[in-house]
Formats: sequence, structure tokens, C-alpha cells
Amino acid sequence: MSTQNLHVAVVGAGLMGADHVQRLARRTAGATVSAVVDIDQERAQAAADMASPARTFSSVEDLIKAGAAEAVVLATPGFLHEEALLQLIDAGIPVMCEKPLTPGPESSLRVVEAEVAAGQRLVQVGFMRRFDAGYRQLKNIIDAGTYGELLMLHHQHRNASVPETFTNEMVIHDSVVHEFDAVRFFSGEEISNVAVRTGRHTSKGTELVRDPQLVTIQTSSGLLATVEIFVNAKLGYQVLTQAVFEEGVVKIGESAGPTVIAESRTGSAIDQTYHTRFVEAYDEEIQQWVNSVATGVPVGPSAWDGYATAAVCGAGVSAQQSGEITSVDMAHKPALYA
Amino acid sequence: MSTQNLHVAVVGAGLMGADHVQRLARRTAGATVSAVVDIDQERAQAAADMASPARTFSSVEDLIKAGAAEAVVLATPGFLHEEALLQLIDAGIPVMCEKPLTPGPESSLRVVEAEVAAGQRLVQVGFMRRFDAGYRQLKNIIDAGTYGELLMLHHQHRNASVPETFTNEMVIHDSVVHEFDAVRFFSGEEISNVAVRTGRHTSKGTELVRDPQLVTIQTSSGLLATVEIFVNAKLGYQVLTQAVFEEGVVKIGESAGPTVIAESRTGSAIDQTYHTRFVEAYDEEIQQWVNSVATGVPVGPSAWDGYATAAVCGAGVSAQQSGEITSVDMAHKPALYA
Amino acid sequence: MSTQNLHVAVVGAGLMGADHVQRLARRTAGATVSAVVDIDQERAQAAADMASPARTFSSVEDLIKAGAAEAVVLATPGFLHEEALLQLIDAGIPVMCEKPLTPGPESSLRVVEAEVAAGQRLVQVGFMRRFDAGYRQLKNIIDAGTYGELLMLHHQHRNASVPETFTNEMVIHDSVVHEFDAVRFFSGEEISNVAVRTGRHTSKGTELVRDPQLVTIQTSSGLLATVEIFVNAKLGYQVLTQAVFEEGVVKIGESAGPTVIAESRTGSAIDQTYHTRFVEAYDEEIQQWVNSVATGVPVGPSAWDGYATAAVCGAGVSAQQSGEITSVDMAHKPALYA
Amino acid sequence: MSTQNLHVAVVGAGLMGADHVQRLARRTAGATVSAVVDIDQERAQAAADMASPARTFSSVEDLIKAGAAEAVVLATPGFLHEEALLQLIDAGIPVMCEKPLTPGPESSLRVVEAEVAAGQRLVQVGFMRRFDAGYRQLKNIIDAGTYGELLMLHHQHRNASVPETFTNEMVIHDSVVHEFDAVRFFSGEEISNVAVRTGRHTSKGTELVRDPQLVTIQTSSGLLATVEIFVNAKLGYQVLTQAVFEEGVVKIGESAGPTVIAESRTGSAIDQTYHTRFVEAYDEEIQQWVNSVATGVPVGPSAWDGYATAAVCGAGVSAQQSGEITSVDMAHKPALYA
Repeated sequence: MSTQNLHVAVVGAGLMGADHVQRLARRTAGATVSAVVDIDQERAQAAADMASPARTFSSVEDLIKAGAAEAVVLATPGFLHEEALLQLIDAGIPVMCEKPLTPGPESSLRVVEAEVAAGQRLVQVGFMRRFDAGYRQLKNIIDAGTYGELLMLHHQHRNASVPETFTNEMVIHDSVVHEFDAVRFFSGEEISNVAVRTGRHTSKGTELVRDPQLVTIQTSSGLLATVEIFVNAKLGYQVLTQAVFEEGVVKIGESAGPTVIAESRTGSAIDQTYHTRFVEAYDEEIQQWVNSVATGVPVGPSAWDGYATAAVCGAGVSAQQSGEITSVDMAHKPALYA
Repeated sequence: MSTQNLHVAVVGAGLMGADHVQRLARRTAGATVSAVVDIDQERAQAAADMASPARTFSSVEDLIKAGAAEAVVLATPGFLHEEALLQLIDAGIPVMCEKPLTPGPESSLRVVEAEVAAGQRLVQVGFMRRFDAGYRQLKNIIDAGTYGELLMLHHQHRNASVPETFTNEMVIHDSVVHEFDAVRFFSGEEISNVAVRTGRHTSKGTELVRDPQLVTIQTSSGLLATVEIFVNAKLGYQVLTQAVFEEGVVKIGESAGPTVIAESRTGSAIDQTYHTRFVEAYDEEIQQWVNSVATGVPVGPSAWDGYATAAVCGAGVSAQQSGEITSVDMAHKPALYA
Repeated sequence: MSTQNLHVAVVGAGLMGADHVQRLARRTAGATVSAVVDIDQERAQAAADMASPARTFSSVEDLIKAGAAEAVVLATPGFLHEEALLQLIDAGIPVMCEKPLTPGPESSLRVVEAEVAAGQRLVQVGFMRRFDAGYRQLKNIIDAGTYGELLMLHHQHRNASVPETFTNEMVIHDSVVHEFDAVRFFSGEEISNVAVRTGRHTSKGTELVRDPQLVTIQTSSGLLATVEIFVNAKLGYQVLTQAVFEEGVVKIGESAGPTVIAESRTGSAIDQTYHTRFVEAYDEEIQQWVNSVATGVPVGPSAWDGYATAAVCGAGVSAQQSGEITSVDMAHKPALYA
Repeated sequence: MSTQNLHVAVVGAGLMGADHVQRLARRTAGATVSAVVDIDQERAQAAADMASPARTFSSVEDLIKAGAAEAVVLATPGFLHEEALLQLIDAGIPVMCEKPLTPGPESSLRVVEAEVAAGQRLVQVGFMRRFDAGYRQLKNIIDAGTYGELLMLHHQHRNASVPETFTNEMVIHDSVVHEFDAVRFFSGEEISNVAVRTGRHTSKGTELVRDPQLVTIQTSSGLLATVEIFVNAKLGYQVLTQAVFEEGVVKIGESAGPTVIAESRTGSAIDQTYHTRFVEAYDEEIQQWVNSVATGVPVGPSAWDGYATAAVCGAGVSAQQSGEITSVDMAHKPALYA
């Protein structure tokens, strides 16, 4: 592999976009931020200044016309993704698209179809957990069959708190979506059905959310997975997975920081947000994506992964309302994603 | 409390009965083994010899007639419990009855009714986990409200293996029965419904069991509890509980033995059977029972607890067959157990 | 083994003595408290009342004359031990003597000589850590040679705090004495030399103690052991041991309680005093002693162990003053303790 | 900070040098490998090919003359460091020098003096542990005074094994040198004296090493630190630190990988070599150095740190031979390193 210098444009200069500008400029080998795109030119310039001499544009269209990017990180709000993705796919430009691919299964399927029509994989979706060291280690153990076949998965997904505006639907679309992708990632299978149950709920939570919830997921071969989703758990940000095999159990997600023995307790600090918990995963995601653009071999979650999780989220919201085991309706998987 | 010397007869001189003879003779303060009852007199004598000068009898009837016991530990097979319990209740003799109280809810209810008719609590049932240090610590934390209200419970219950004769029904009646009682113990509520799901199963298991299974339990106030029951898990015997509160999570059941750093791994040994995992719980159960007979204040699980779990087991077996959420049908709780 | 009922007198009805009365009455199989001895008859009676119908005496002499004890637990202050021990040895009565055996090596050696003259082992010394589950497990691992030969031992011994009256000498005599016995117990060897170093010390400590201190111990075959002794460590009561073998390392002493995930930390509570940390060890110590009196086979630390640690403590105090590696001067070990 | 592209030459194309070429080319932002220097031109070319279009040179002199590097990573054997460092300092070129700075305190002092004469900090020394996440977290805790003043440090440093050629002196110079630097790093003080004791030794070790050894270190203010160094410990590669404060204890270095419950044990894998244990520290070391060259603000261990540890190593080898507490003889620290 030779030293490269990929010219990357960051589209969307909000918090996440600005974070990607810094990541590309300061912690990613083989990439330069060549442009920042935002309809708010002041914001675009502020982000570009972190990585001068980057140019600024106010639209993806202008960016493409100017030929100012070999690849794009898409960090706009989700409802703007479809239009940008279709333009970038049309222009043959690789794009690392923050999740969600698009807000729903129909629009996501259109992106998949555009990519299939283009005949090549250009889109990586930002399910960054796949790049977390623990996730990769567990995936390796599953694929190696070290402890026999994978039989069951238990997840806990806890946030310290969410804003008052967070809704029950967002519990599925913004939070459990990660476990939907995780179960697909670990099992290598599509999800067949989903169930959501609620019971006692916290008095310390937010108005719009019934909290915690118990989600049960089943894949095409029957693999069962549970998710405790608790978005106002107070204690911090915890993402735990316990994988049950025929001849062993593997757990990931425990705090890896120093052990502190003080104030009558021995223990470790818990991350408070995904920023600290998954900071290395974000870096690794972008580094592997930059490397994959250079080699032309896609490595991360595909547009299909974006579509499939959107389809599961749809079933999840229905399940949340009915309390029943709900089948997932999914399109046929194109050969491009085989 | 004055020093006492309770004369205890052990009924049933099989493995469990002989174990109780030794426990009473060597590790329990305030008790003497006064008699051993078994239809097989040779076996009765062998057990009695571990605690001479104990007498032997071939039936509970003879034991009662001889006035040779102030209290009884009942360790015969479950199908013999009802008759013995009714005789002992009739004679006003306190009895520590190994689980199950009786094999089914109808017969268990008859024992409850006999006790209610007698007007006093005479029966303690052998749900020994309630005497485990971890269980008691968690129960104290729940009752103290240290971390707010209890919201969800996650259990893992793993055996290294079971005999080939172990059936799917026994998964519920012999294994999950402990979690049924645990959920009742922790929540202080009766169980309203049960669901059982299966999916991928181990190729290393036994013929008659679909293994592992995922059990979901809900109490009268809505508390949700999950149980992974995996009876051929190979790795050893593990009983883990994770209690989710409004402002914290508490886990019990991790190995408490030495940490060993060797052969490229750092870790601890796992108990291989309930004998080693719950050895202190069995001792504590009997010691507290002996003390409670002296004081006349019952401390452990009651005949009602035996009945109620039998009723839940009935629903559990139905749920296992239907795959659906199954309501539990339960009699009215007599004031004696308030 | 037949059921026994050993008549035990408790000599000394202070806190520790009263604790032993309750232990014998309520948690020890095969023993009855037959008498309580204390010069303060009111105190004796109060303790006896916890185990009626126990008699009371005001001296060991009277106790012996009355023939009111088959065995004795000696729980008076240490400076009264020698006289009582010599009387009891003379009367052939087994005694479980709280540590120290006596306050110094000379007086301890006189007890050893009396026992040797009596021709039988009658004295067990209260080094209760030898009965702690972790200590026994580590001892078994050492003796089994599971990880090869034992090469080094690291100890941490931390108290939350000590009274203002606690002196530098007491750091050795009351605290490190336990590690002196532990190193002898684990290695099966006598201690040859001791060194004590101090450096930075806590500003949160007590006036008379230089805290923490670093003690280095070497046994006759060269085994090195370190002890961090920190008697005003604030965090709680911790007794940790790390044993380094040729092919592995074993650690004991970590908290075995529930794991709590709350307030941004995951962890476990630390015991605050030896009462909770070693409560099972005290029970086990007395139970094994009662059983050993019945069988006539001594199991615990002997009068020789009491003498030998007293000799090491003497060297330890010298080492504390000189800062140099200090040899331990010890008498020849009588065949009785082989 | 603007996007930079520092032209870095790697001097020495052996295993470590080639590793640095790959790190700079693939995992370091803001740097390009502009040249590889090795007397063996074939080896230089092989390394350069991993980062084309890098040039090759056979000497540092030629490299400097050609103006082909803005900064240098020096990865030749230690005995070649002095000459290269003096040339690079003379040319005003920043250099990241793998440890040791030079093989002994006299030659190291000459490098310090050259740098002082040059009037600017140009040399960073490769004590990569300072960039380990755990080390940085502990350093932050110490500096913040979170748990009061640091009072004592305990280290365990274990290798699975060393080559037969590894000598007792190398135990100090190649292994304990890391703890010497760590104690200086954590305390911010120079080391005043060192002691080394040996006792029982492993029968599974190598011929030339007395293994394990117990090293005691004391800093200028009296801080005591212990090191168990065990270079044939079989179990893997472990670097553990326990820092004792006035009001708490902090431990770093425990395995952060998945918890595996299998084969009757629950636990985690241990790293087998420093390659896996400190891989992120090496990356972080180089990334921070590249960034520091751009900003002109030195961040890592200095030439003085290289000299000071060399002086302590000298005392350590003497202490190993004498068994006594040995003072460290050190030059006056120039203002440049204040």
C-alpha cells in the first residue's frame, strides 16, 4: 500500500460534521479535508478553518461540479441524506454516510436501487459500533467458532438521560437501531421478527418515553436476542453484550479504565456519553473507510445494511404499539451486497 | 435466646437426606438428629450412624407415634411429600420440606389448606437461594430502595449438563422454578404471566431438551424479568441476576473465588454444581429454620410459596408449548401468609 | 463422627468474649457454653445469659476446680494469657487462645515449653485468617503445586483508620503480625529476616504512626514477601494477597459482594472492618476447633505459631527503628510441633 | 491547527524501523515518510516500498545533506544513537529516538549537553508507556490530587519469557528501565536510591537471569515504589501499577478485552507481548510527536529523561550485585528541561 492523500469533503458542518473535519485533519492518515459543504456558509467556513486550506460550498451540487472532492463524509440531518446520496452515487463518489441512511425503509430502498444501478458499492453507513474493539473481537470469536455456534445474545443499552423531546419511536429509531444492526452484524443474518414489552417504568424519566423497554429479536435461523433499552438510566452510558455459545459465553462492553478503590468502594468509572465510549470506534471507522476508498474494497456497513435496519425499525415501532411478535417485511437482497 | 437442642428427624435417607443428617450433626447449632426415617431400613441406619445415637423408623406414622421428633426435615421424592406433610401438619410438627412442596398446584393447594386449617405456619419449603448471601444482599437493596424502584430483572441460569432423561418440562419444573421463586422473592409480588421462546439450540445438548430457552416473566405490577435457561451449557454452573433500578443496576452471582492469572488468561473458577455454588445457602437455610422453630417465628419460604411457584410452573409448561404469553391462574392467598 | 456436645467455657466476657459466647451458642454445632469466666461477675452473667444455663466464675482456677469446662476459649487481654494458659495446660484442658499467645517471645516460649512438658498439643492460637476461604484456597493451590513453586508474595493490608493511641510498634504487633503468620502459613517455613521502610506519609493519619510502611519479609529458603501496611487508608478494610508462582499468579481478598453500577461507577463495596471481612473465618475457626477437640487431632495454629510470630514481631520493631534488614532470632522447634 | 504534512525520515530499517514506517504511512495524520536510512540498502528499500515514494539513504549524514527530512525517527541499535543524535541536533532536526537514548549515563549526558548548547529541545525519547491510556489517566489523577497525595507505588512487570541470551543486567537496562521512567513520570521527581533483592527463583527460567527480582525505588521526597520484575513468568505480558494515595488506591494495566466464560473459568485473555499490550501507545506516541513538531511544543520524554533513567539503571545494576540500598548519582538538571 502506498502513501495516499485522499481529498475528502465533509457535507454538513454541524457538531458531527465539525467533529469529522477535526478527525480527518488530525487523526486520520492518508486523507486531507479538501472542502466543507453547508448551506450556512459561516458555519462551513468555521469548520474549514480547522483544516485549512479547505474550500467551502453551499451545496453538494456545487461541490461535485467543482470537482473538489474524491470522497465525501455526509453529516447532514437524516432527511437530507437521500438527495445528496443519489447525487453522489450518480457522480461515482464514495460516501461515508452518518446513520440513518435515510429516515425510512422506502427511501433507503431507493438509495440501494441507485447503487445497484450504478453497479458498484459507493456508500458506507455510520454504524460505528462495528469498528469498536470489543465488537470486532466478539465478531472474530463468533466467526472462528471458538466456542461453537452462537445461540443467544443479551444486550443492555443504557443512556444517562435523553432530552424531554425524545419519543417512544426514537427509542427504536435512534437507540435500538444499533442493536438491530449489531444482531445482524454478529449473526450475519437478517432479522425475522421483533417484540417489545414494557412494564414498571422509571419515575425519573422523561415524559414521552416508557422506560425501560424489553426488546426481543429473532433472526432468520431462529437466533434469539434480548435488548434492555433504558434511556434515562442515570448511571451513565453503557452498551453491554453477552453472547451465549454452545460451549462458552463472551461478554463485551465493560469499562476498561482504571480501577479505583476509594470512598468504601472498588470499581471503575462509567462513560457518560457515546462520545467517550466509542471515540476510538469513530476514528477507526473513518480510517478504515479512507483506506477502503484507496483500495476499492468496501469494509463497513453497506447501503443494504442501512435499508435492512430501517425495515426492522419499522417493525419495531409496530411491535412497540401492539405488544406482539411482529414480522419484518424486507425486499430481496441484491447480488451487489452478497 | 437460650441454648436449645432441637430433636430433628430426617425423613428420606437418600443423597439429599444423608446430606441433611451430616449438616444437622456437624454444622448446625442447637439441633440433634434424633431419628432417620426410610422405608429402606439399611439406608436409614447408614444415615443414622453418621449422627448416633439416632433412632430409625420406616414410616412417618411410626416416627410420630414414637414421639421421636420435635421437627422434621423432609427429603423424600416429591410425590411422597403430600401424605407426609398432611400427617406432620396434623401432628403439629414443624417441617422443612425439600422442594417441590408437591408435584403440582392442586396437591400443593391441599397442603396450604391443611396448614390454614391447623391455624399455624408449620411448613418451610426448600428454596435455598433465598438464603444465599448474594440473594439476601440484593433483597435488602431492593427493600431499602437504595437505587429507587426495581424496574427489570435479568437472569442467567446455566448448568454444565443434565442427564439424558431430563425433559423440556423439567426445564421449567426443576430449573426455572428457582427463578419463579426468585422473582416472587425479590418483587414481593405474584407472577401474572409467563412466556417461553426457543430458537437456535445447542448441538452439544441432550435429546429431550430444546436448549437454551428464553423465559419472560411479568409480575402483578408489571415488573418484567428475563431468564436464559441453558441446562447443557458446558462451562459449569452459573446463576446470575442483574437487577435494574431507577438509578442503578446491581449484579449478583459472579464467582467469588481467587483470581488466577495463568495460561494466558486472568480469571476465576466457575462452580460446577449447585453443591458448591450454594453450599453456604443450604447450611444457612437449615440453621435459620432450626432457630425459627425455637422462636416460633417462621423465616423462610412458606407452603404458599410452594403452591404459588407450582401454579407458575403449570403456566410455564403451557407457555413452552404454545410460544405465547400465558396467564397464571392462582387461588386466593389465605391471611395466614400475609 | 458421632454427634457431640462439648462443654466450653469462655474466659473473658468483654466484646470478643461475648462474641464467642454467641458464636458457640448460635452458630457452632456440637458445643454448649457451659460457663463464662470474668473477674467482673456482672459482665460474666450478662454474657452467660446469652447462652443459659451457663454458670459463671470469677477465675480460671475456680472454673477448673468446679470441673465446669471440657474446653476453653480464652478471650482476656493478652497480658493475662500466660497465667491462664499454664493453668489450663496443667489441667489438660484444650484451649482456643485469642491472639497474641502472650505479649512477647519469652513468655510465649514458656507456654510452648509447658505444652511440650505436658506432652500433648492443647493450645490453638487465634490467627483466624487461616480459616478464611480465600486463604485456604490459596494454601491448597500452593500445596498442590498447581502453578509450580511459590516464588513471591505481595500483600496489602489497609485499615480505614486506627485510634489516636495506635503506635508504630502496634503497626507491627497488631497489624503486620497477621502477614507474618500468613507468610509462615503459606510457605510452611520460618521467617529469617525482616525489613521496614517508610517514605512519604499521609497527612490524614494519626499522630503516632508513620503511615504507610513497606515491610519486606524473607523465609528460610529465600522466599520474598512484601507488605504494604496502611492503617489510616480511609477507603475501608482491605486484606489482599498476590502469590507469584513459576507458572501463574493467584490473587485473593477482592470484595465478593454485589456489583453495583450507579453514580457513574461500576464496582463493589469494601468491607469497613475485620468484623465483616472475616466473620466467616471466625465462625469456621471455632467450628473446626470444636471438631478438633472431639477428634483429638489439632487443626489450627499452634502455640509454636504464637511463639514464632512473636519472635518475628520483635525483629520487625527493631527493623522499623533501624531501616535495615534484620535477622530473626528463634528457638529450636520442639518435635511436638513437627 | 492547520493540516500539515511533515516529511519524516526513518533511520534504521530493522523490525522496529519498518514498524514505524507503516505507522507513519497508515496510521499517523499529518506525516509522510520521505526517506528511509539504513546501511543495508536492500532493507532500506524494502521499508521505503511500504511508503512510496520515499527515498533511501545509507547514512544520516547523506540524509541531512540531501535535505530529505524535516524530522527523524531513530530506530537503529542503541550503540549507534549518540553519533546520529549529535548530527541531527547540529542540523536542528527534531528526532524521536527509540529507547535507550544511548547505552550509558556518560554518553547520554553528552547528548543532553549538545541539546543544551543548541538551545532548544529537539529530542524525544521512546518511553512509549507515557502515552498508554492507563498511564495518562493515572498521571492525571495524581496531578489533580483527586485522592490526595501519592504515597506508594506497586508495580508488576511480567514477560512470558526472554531469550537465553538475556542477562541479569538486561533485567535492569531493558525491563526495569520502564518502571524507573514510570516512577519519575508519575512522581515528577528524580530517583534517589534503588535496592534489588532476589530469593527463590523459577526453575522454568533462563540460565543468565535470577528470576523474579524485587526492586525498591525511592524518589527525592521519599516516595517508595516496588517492582516485581519476572521475565520468564510464562503467563503472558503483564504491566500492572497500583498507586496508593492518602484517600484511595488506583490500579491500571488489567486486561481490557472480552470476558470469556468457558472451560470452567470466567476471565480475560492476557496480552502475550508488548506489541499487542502497547500498540495504541506506540501510535499515540508518534502522533503526538508529529503534532508537537508542527507546534514546536515538545510533549514527550526528553533527552534529560533518557539521561536520568540511564543514571538510575547504573545504580540498579550496582544494587543488583550488592543487595544494598544504592544511591543514584546524577548531574545537575539544565534549565532547558525545567
